[in-house]
Order: sequence, then C-alpha cells, then structure tokens
Amino acid sequence: VTDEQRFAELRSRLQEVDDLRKATWVLHWDLETMMPPGGAEVRAEQLGTLAGIAHERFTVDELGELLEALRGYEGELDYDSDEASLIRVARREYERARRVPAELRAEMVRAGSHGKQAWLRAREANDYAVFRPALERNLELQGQYIECLDGTADPYDVLVAEYEPGLTTADIAAVFEELRDQLTPLVTALEPPEEPPLDLGLSDRESRAAVDRVLARLGFDRDWGRVDTSVHPFMINFGTRDVRLTIYKEGGLRTVYAALHEFGHGLYERGVDPALERTLLAQGASGALHESQSLLWENLVGRGRPFCDWLARELGGVDPQALYRGANRIERSLIRVDADPVTYSLHVIFRFELEHELVSGALAPADLSEAWNSRVADYLGLAVPDDLRGVLQDMHWSDMLMGYFPSYALGHVASAQIWERASADLPQLDEELARGEFRPLAEWLRERVHRHGQKFTTPETMERAVGGGFDPEPLLRVVRSKLNSS
Amino acid sequence: VTDEQRFAELRSRLQEVDDLRKATWVLHWDLETMMPPGGAEVRAEQLGTLAGIAHERFTVDELGELLEALRGYEGELDYDSDEASLIRVARREYERARRVPAELRAEMVRAGSHGKQAWLRAREANDYAVFRPALERNLELQGQYIECLDGTADPYDVLVAEYEPGLTTADIAAVFEELRDQLTPLVTALEPPEEPPLDLGLSDRESRAAVDRVLARLGFDRDWGRVDTSVHPFMINFGTRDVRLTIYKEGGLRTVYAALHEFGHGLYERGVDPALERTLLAQGASGALHESQSLLWENLVGRGRPFCDWLARELGGVDPQALYRGANRIERSLIRVDADPVTYSLHVIFRFELEHELVSGALAPADLSEAWNSRVADYLGLAVPDDLRGVLQDMHWSDMLMGYFPSYALGHVASAQIWERASADLPQLDEELARGEFRPLAEWLRERVHRHGQKFTTPETMERAVGGGFDPEPLLRVVRSKLNSS
Repeated sequence: VTDEQRFAELRSRLQEVDDLRKATWVLHWDLETMMPPGGAEVRAEQLGTLAGIAHERFTVDELGELLEALRGYEGELDYDSDEASLIRVARREYERARRVPAELRAEMVRAGSHGKQAWLRAREANDYAVFRPALERNLELQGQYIECLDGTADPYDVLVAEYEPGLTTADIAAVFEELRDQLTPLVTALEPPEEPPLDLGLSDRESRAAVDRVLARLGFDRDWGRVDTSVHPFMINFGTRDVRLTIYKEGGLRTVYAALHEFGHGLYERGVDPALERTLLAQGASGALHESQSLLWENLVGRGRPFCDWLARELGGVDPQALYRGANRIERSLIRVDADPVTYSLHVIFRFELEHELVSGALAPADLSEAWNSRVADYLGLAVPDDLRGVLQDMHWSDMLMGYFPSYALGHVASAQIWERASADLPQLDEELARGEFRPLAEWLRERVHRHGQKFTTPETMERAVGGGFDPEPLLRVVRSKLNSS
Repeated sequence: VTDEQRFAELRSRLQEVDDLRKATWVLHWDLETMMPPGGAEVRAEQLGTLAGIAHERFTVDELGELLEALRGYEGELDYDSDEASLIRVARREYERARRVPAELRAEMVRAGSHGKQAWLRAREANDYAVFRPALERNLELQGQYIECLDGTADPYDVLVAEYEPGLTTADIAAVFEELRDQLTPLVTALEPPEEPPLDLGLSDRESRAAVDRVLARLGFDRDWGRVDTSVHPFMINFGTRDVRLTIYKEGGLRTVYAALHEFGHGLYERGVDPALERTLLAQGASGALHESQSLLWENLVGRGRPFCDWLARELGGVDPQALYRGANRIERSLIRVDADPVTYSLHVIFRFELEHELVSGALAPADLSEAWNSRVADYLGLAVPDDLRGVLQDMHWSDMLMGYFPSYALGHVASAQIWERASADLPQLDEELARGEFRPLAEWLRERVHRHGQKFTTPETMERAVGGGFDPEPLLRVVRSKLNSS
C-alpha cells in the first residue's frame, strides 16, 4: 500500500463522515425553518442517530491507523498543503473525538434538540424555570463530555479548544480583561440617546424585499444560497455552493443588519477553496474567525458612512445622515443581538463569565437568572424586567453550544483588526462601498481568510489574515471614534 | 438472551435504519423544494452516502441472525400483531436487500439524483435526447439490480415485488387487460368536449389560498404538515406527524385537484398507528394502496357532485354545476397527471407496457420517444407534438422509479372498490361531503386501511379494506356513470 493510496482512503472515509454531518445540518435547518411542530420528537431521534453514526465512523480504529501510517507522508508535505492540513486537522479532531463515547455524543444531540424545544416553551411562558431542567441536563452532559477529555488547567479549556483551536481560557480572559477595563468606564458613562430608534416605515414584506435586493448587490447569489425566516437568524451550509441564511420574520432596520451579519458568515463558507469540498477543512477556521466575518459586514461595512450612503439610496427616500445615525445609535440595552458595536462586547464578556462559572460549578443553574440580572446591572447599569429580555434571549445554552460565546467578542476584536488591514490594502474601499461595489472587499477577504477554510488553527489563521494575534486596540479605536462622532 | 430481548434489539436496529432512511427523505424533499441549484453535486454524494449506510446497517449479518432466532417467537404471536408483522416484513425486506451490494444501491441513488437533473435539463431543452444517456445508465443499473435477485418468470417481477408485495407481473397484466379491453372502445369513441376547460379566474396566489383553506377543512393540520411548491407535486413524510405535500407553483383548478391527490397520500401516512413509528411498518402498504388513497380523494370525493357543491360555496361566486362539469371534463389528452378518471388508466397501462419492454430489452432507449408517441396514437388517438408533452412528462424513469407505474392504475382500480365499500358503510356520506364534513370518511379509511401501515402485503391489505382482491368492475361502473352523465 502506497502513501497515496492510504491518503485516498483517508480522504474517502472523511468525505463519508462529512456527508453524514452535512446531512445532520440539513435536518437541523429544516427543524428551524420548515418542520411542523409534530415532527419534533422523531426528528430528535433522527438527529441523534445520524450524529451517533457520524461519530462512530469518524472514530473507527482504521482511521487512527491510517493517520498514524501517514505521519511520514505528512512530514514530507508542505505544512500549508491541502493534504498535510487534512491529515493534521483530522488527527486533532480524531484524538479529541476518540475520547468521547458515541452514546454520549448522540445523547448530547438529543438533549440539544429537546433543550431547544424547552427553550422555545420557556420563551412562550417568559419563565426561565420552564427551561431550567433542560439546562441542568445539558450541563450534566457537558460535564461528562469534559471528563472524557484531558485534565486541562481549567475544565472550560476543553470547550475553548472546540471552538478556538490553539487558544486557552487564559488567552481569552487576557483579551477580555483589557477590553472590559477599557469599555466599562465608557459604557457606564453613556447617556441615553436623544433620538428614538430609526423607523424606516417598511412593512415586513417591504423589509424582506429590501433585504433581498441588498443581498443580491452584495453578491449573495440564489444559484448557491437561499434566505428563510426563523426565531433567531443563523447561517448554515451543506456545501460551498449551498449556503442558507435565515432572518427575522419581522421587518425593519434590525432585519437588514441581521441579514448583513448572516451574509458575512455565508460569504466565508462560500469562499472556501472548492478543492476542500466534502472534507472537514471545508468550513470556517473557528467561531471567532466566523464572527469576525459576520461582524465585519454588519458593523464595519454596514454601519460605516459609505455603506449607509449607498443603502439610503437603495432604500429610496431615506436621508443618509438619518440612516447613519440610526444605524449607529449607541444605547445600553438588554438584548445582545440588538446591541451596538460599543456595548456589544460587554454582553458577551458577562456570558463568558457566567458559563465559565456554570461549567466550573461556581454557579448553580437555580441561581442563573438572578446572576444574569445582577451582571447586567453591574456591567450595563440596567434592570432586567423579565427572562425573555434576560437569560432566555439566546438559544446557545439550550442547544449544547456552551463555550461558543467568547468567539463573538473575539470575532468582534478580529473584525476590527481585519478591517484595518483591508482598508490599508484597498485604498479605494470607501469610495467602492459608497457606490455599492462590494466585490473588491469580498475578494480580499477570500484571499486572506476564506479560502483557507479550516486548514489552520485560530492563531495561525489570524497570522495569515493580519500578521499577528488578537489585539483589542483596533476595536477600541472604532469604539472611541463612534463615541466621538455621536 | 430472551426472545423479548432479541426482539428489542431487532426493533432498535430497525429504528436506526428508519432514522437513516427518513433523513435521506428530508434531503430529497429539500432538493426538490428548497435547495439552490449549486447544491446538487454535493447533495447527490450525501444521498449516496446515506443510502449506502442505511443499506449496510439493514443488511448486517447480526440482523439476519436475529430474524432467524426469532422464528419461534414469531410463530407464537398473532399474525396480525405489530411484533409478528415487524419480524415478517423485516425478514422479507432483509432477504431482498441482502442480495444487492451496498455499492450498487448507492450508485442507484446517485444515478437517480443525476438522472433527475438530466431530466430537468431535457425538459428545458424539450428534447428526449438530452435525457437518454441518463436513462440508459439507469436501465443498466436496474438490470444489475434485477440480476442480484431471484430468477423469476419475468425480470419485471422483481420490480413488481418491490412496490406490490404479493403480486406478480401476470397478476397485474390480467387486471390491466380487462381494463384496457373495456376502456379502449369507450375512449376511442370519445368526442372532444364542447366546453373549454373551466377557468376559475384565480391568480396563483388566490389558488394557493384556496388550496390552504380546502386542506384545512379536510383536516390537514399545520401542526403535523406543510405545503410547498415543486415542478411535480408529491407527498413525502419523515414521521406520522411530519407530512409534506407539494403542489404546482401555477394556480387554477388543476392545482386544487393535485392538492387533493397529495392530501390523500398524506392522510394515509398520518393515519398509520403511532405504535409503528420509526419502523419500516410506519408507511403505506404499497404503491397501489397509496394511489388508492390519493385517487379516492382526488376523483371519488373531489370530482363527486357533493364535494363540488361544497367547493363551489367555499371558493365563492362559482356555479356548482359549472364546477362539477369542469372537474369532470372528459378529454383524450397527452398529460397523465391532468388526465380525467375515464382515460387515466390507459395512460398508465401503456407506460407499464413500455417499461416492461425496456426492462426485458424488447425496446431500446433510443426508440423510446417514438414508441411512446406511437402508443399514444394507438391507445388515445392523439399525436404527441413534442417530448415535453410525451416521454419527458413524468420524472419516474429519471429517478430509478421503474416499476412504479402499474401501481397508479391498480390504485385507480382499488380506489373505486374502497369507495363503494365506504359508501355502503357510511349511508350519510354524500350529505356529509356536501356539508364539508370529511371526518367520518377519514376515520373510516383510517380504520380500514391507514392504521395497518405496511404490516400486510398488497392482497392482504386489500382483503382487510374491501374483503377481496383487485376487481376492475367498480372502476368501470364509475367510468360508465361519468360517460352517461356527461
């Protein structure tokens, strides 16, 4: 058996696993956007079965033996080559996955499905207590999961490694502490805005039509993508040429910016080198890198003056200055996904702190709603009136996405770093954006970030994108500039 | 190990296989209704992988050993019990599936996906030649598939057994010959109708709203179902409480009746005993039984005078007599799915003859378009102007559904038998239908047909539904009555 044959077998096995995973994603997407409620129970079983089989196929001994046998071959290849990267990343994921029994994985998927339903019921009742049992179950399973993996300095490190390969809890805490120390005095000093939120006067249908026009101009092509509605917007894709965005059913400026956010995620997946299709490299490098792309389009393109000028013309009959002010309305608020770029990071930082405490056991689920409300009071100076505007606002903890929140703020940090770099490389960028020409920026992002997919770790990808690690300074420069101009 | 433990293991293995199959169906549904075109290539791979794994899991030695070990247990159980039925039907399918290699199955799924795309391209070009290579590939694979199975009297028997367990090609030919002999003189004597097709004057949007209202009244509940659009209407379900119908994008009376047809399929799946959920028994008994349900709602309910009276009131401003005449317009026509209940069976009978000849090798794919056109000339007395209105009208041969056509005409036959029986058991039926009360009929069907799912073969299910086998007389009575009343 030659190394080339071994590699071909590895690739073929990984393609099969990728097909299974993407099939699971199709079922998830359908559950969120299309499925009648009666389908929930059987769907949870289907998702559990598929995830279990994907895990089983990914963790067979033969795959480990192939990875072992290919060490020499890998060493001869360029580190950056698709082949070496596939072996390297597959080995990292294999070693991680081998320690977690298929039954636990399947149970986590099932619990995620059930948790999601419980979260939706709790939201309807506006009562965290309805969701608490599901959260307790999720934490119990999360704990079992962490136990399966190496005893790291901090149990939360296991979750960090899942979304941000190459980083630790301590790395993240260092970035967040600087951000928090700089932001807190600025945010607590914020006066309520004088103007009410901008009302574009668009119906739901008109907003949807506007979103469709804006996305088309941005280059979101119905040949490789589609847009639907769901409770919470998201992006998911089943191949580099099948990218699904969802937006809110309700219209308004918020929906336009949520669409920009999900577009950023979708463009990343679309930009992955097609040579990586049907492998685990055909996806964004990490949560933070993914969020850097969504936040770049939402905040740095979308809330910039040039884009607002273009958007005002595109919407017709909207004053550009009013639109710009409306899009940059800074206000301490209760809902993370509606937060402005100034206060946003603090929303994420206290979620990181809370879930870190939940995972370490320092905080009991019974106390979570109160802990949430007290953190909002301390950091944002706001009183949380009910769970819907508090602890029930995000679906992550219902769906086993514990550990993902830090990626949002890291992505926020990275988005400003990448934006500064792109602006330096593309001297005409402002003029292009003002004319609604988005291709030069999209191509720059593809070249610097998207095409690599998951070939490299979070720090390695940052190195290729901006020539260094996470640095909160560019984001703080954006924040200060927004505060000075308002 | 006790028999109960063995049975529990069998059930659990079959549930896993069912989850995989239903997942495949979700991917199929998405492909037909939602997927952007760019997703096609990767989706074909995903479908191939899933079907391959489902087949692999269903054909493992351990399952055969369990089925063997459970023979004694099965013998002690009531034939009609869920447990004995699951063992019996699983054994039949297992023995069939074991003879077909996983690679061939996966290749057939892939070829079906590619064939479907080729069919769509051929339809766009209105040229059978564009589709022919895909059909040749499909036939080649179909031939390999038949070779894997027992040398039956007729190779086509293998396909009949797939859709109509318990029947042979000869059984079908006998029913079809009588039908054809009786119908041909009636159909060839038909004069073109004097009135043009009924135009309800509804826009696509109004038709869709009307379909939604009618379906709601029929009992199609958005808690367990949804309706989308596709090139060709179909029903698919992923559980007894997740039933998807599709209808044409285009409005009009045709869309209303297509919705009734798919509703009949959906109600069947919804009516299967929930105790059978997540097993291979949780589906309609056969193609013919399924079509009996769709055609019963489309033709015998939907084109009956009482329903037309109700529908005219429901649509508002429509003359009941005009609606009834429009719904029962009898005309020799080119398109099967638009054919009236009088001419319909002949469309199916010549398709059965053609695919029987294709499979036996008596007809070459190169000659199919001409053979089709000459059969239409002989049976219906019509000239086929182009492939779109000829051989390219049905997707079955593109998607490896060779052998399914007979089920349509058998279902037509069965629908009239079941209708006569239901009418005898429900003396108030006409009055109920005229008032838009559909529950008594739906409940009768559930009790006599739906709840059994796939526990029994085609003849066994017919026995339970009407107390006998296929008999064309009731259908011929309907045909004669339609001809006399027009």
